[in-house]
Amino acid sequence: MTGSLSIAGLGPGDTALITPEVSAALAEATDVLGYAPYVARVPARAGLRLHASDNRMELQRAREALELAANGHKVVMVSSGDPGVFAMAAAVFEALEASPECNELDIRVLPGVTAMLAVAARVGAPLGHDFCAINLSDNLKPWELIQKRLRLAAEADFAIALYNPRSVSRPEGFDRALDVLREAGCGERLVIFAHAVTTPKERIDIVSLRDAKAEMADMTTLVIIGNSATRRVGRWIYAPRRAS
Amino acid sequence: MTGSLSIAGLGPGDTALITPEVSAALAEATDVLGYAPYVARVPARAGLRLHASDNRMELQRAREALELAANGHKVVMVSSGDPGVFAMAAAVFEALEASPECNELDIRVLPGVTAMLAVAARVGAPLGHDFCAINLSDNLKPWELIQKRLRLAAEADFAIALYNPRSVSRPEGFDRALDVLREAGCGERLVIFAHAVTTPKERIDIVSLRDAKAEMADMTTLVIIGNSATRRVGRWIYAPRRAS
Repeated sequence: MTGSLSIAGLGPGDTALITPEVSAALAEATDVLGYAPYVARVPARAGLRLHASDNRMELQRAREALELAANGHKVVMVSSGDPGVFAMAAAVFEALEASPECNELDIRVLPGVTAMLAVAARVGAPLGHDFCAINLSDNLKPWELIQKRLRLAAEADFAIALYNPRSVSRPEGFDRALDVLREAGCGERLVIFAHAVTTPKERIDIVSLRDAKAEMADMTTLVIIGNSATRRVGRWIYAPRRAS
Repeated sequence: MTGSLSIAGLGPGDTALITPEVSAALAEATDVLGYAPYVARVPARAGLRLHASDNRMELQRAREALELAANGHKVVMVSSGDPGVFAMAAAVFEALEASPECNELDIRVLPGVTAMLAVAARVGAPLGHDFCAINLSDNLKPWELIQKRLRLAAEADFAIALYNPRSVSRPEGFDRALDVLREAGCGERLVIFAHAVTTPKERIDIVSLRDAKAEMADMTTLVIIGNSATRRVGRWIYAPRRAS
């Protein structure tokens, strides 16, 4: 039997946002690997082994997936959202780099709806003009680099999507990020705090950056900071397409 | 009859990337509006009126959609990719701002897989670290602003997704964009030119920025420029998660 590894995105939470491509891969899988809360979103069935692992075990999980595929299993590695955005795809290619014998494996990346797109859709179109996405988790990069990127993103007047704003181990990072953006003159910008978007626990708060507090976010929150022109129309928020 | 307007993303091309949410909205629609090549992706059926319009008619098309919904139609406005990323959602909210009588309409934005995610999945994980997305179409913003954003994005060491790199009316813009990035010291970075991704006409070229030529892109090309650490492993390209 020829093994394969599909690195798949489950979208933000709602099953209606899982692509048919990903559903088909899950239907054919012998093994599903991933961070436990994401594996829990895959229905159990006969013939399917679910391998749930802890957060921060990315590289070990990636190695295990490659090994299973090399041994003939049909493996699906699941991420929330899109697997290529601050998720498992990069970890798998890192693991592949250390395992050249796996280079000829049948590997596919199956894209998904990443959280910032689902959040943007819920509130309107805050990413309708140029934007950037920054992972605030600082266990893989120094705080100085995060700070530099925030300053440059503010200067570029990008809308800014912040992933993993508030880690349990370093809760003060997000506070400092908000300060950096306020110091960069973004106090009047609109900030969207979206918690567990498209799930029954969804909650969205919108405030000005001046009034934003780090406690408004946790690890399941996706934050979007509008650009300087982002505005409200009725219950919606959008970035005008035109800029000067 | 109560009308509604869903602003939906059809994904990059492959029907297996259309979310069930969007398929359900299309199945219930009385009217589908959009740029002609996108409307052509919606199968005709009895009871469904297809309203194809020309490019650059966004605001007029948005007004028409609001009017149809206000008159009780079940309207779906289609975009390629995600409707919130350089697509129709922002145009609809612009039109809504000028039509306050439509404020209470049942409007929903249905996210989709935007082109950069599909391209990233095809080649590996070039968006696995911080990144930005810039629309190179300069009919809605001055060239000076595009140039400034490119320079700042290079300085921030973002991977850079470029949408609409090469317009028919201003083919020289993309040439200048490549020059700006080379002058910013990005000559060694990998550049992905992805044409018609996930369709039968898909073609992907990967070169260093030094060797990139504007003719490698047209209006259906999505360009991703890797960050300074983006590397190859076998046939794949990815951005390492760790940065210093």
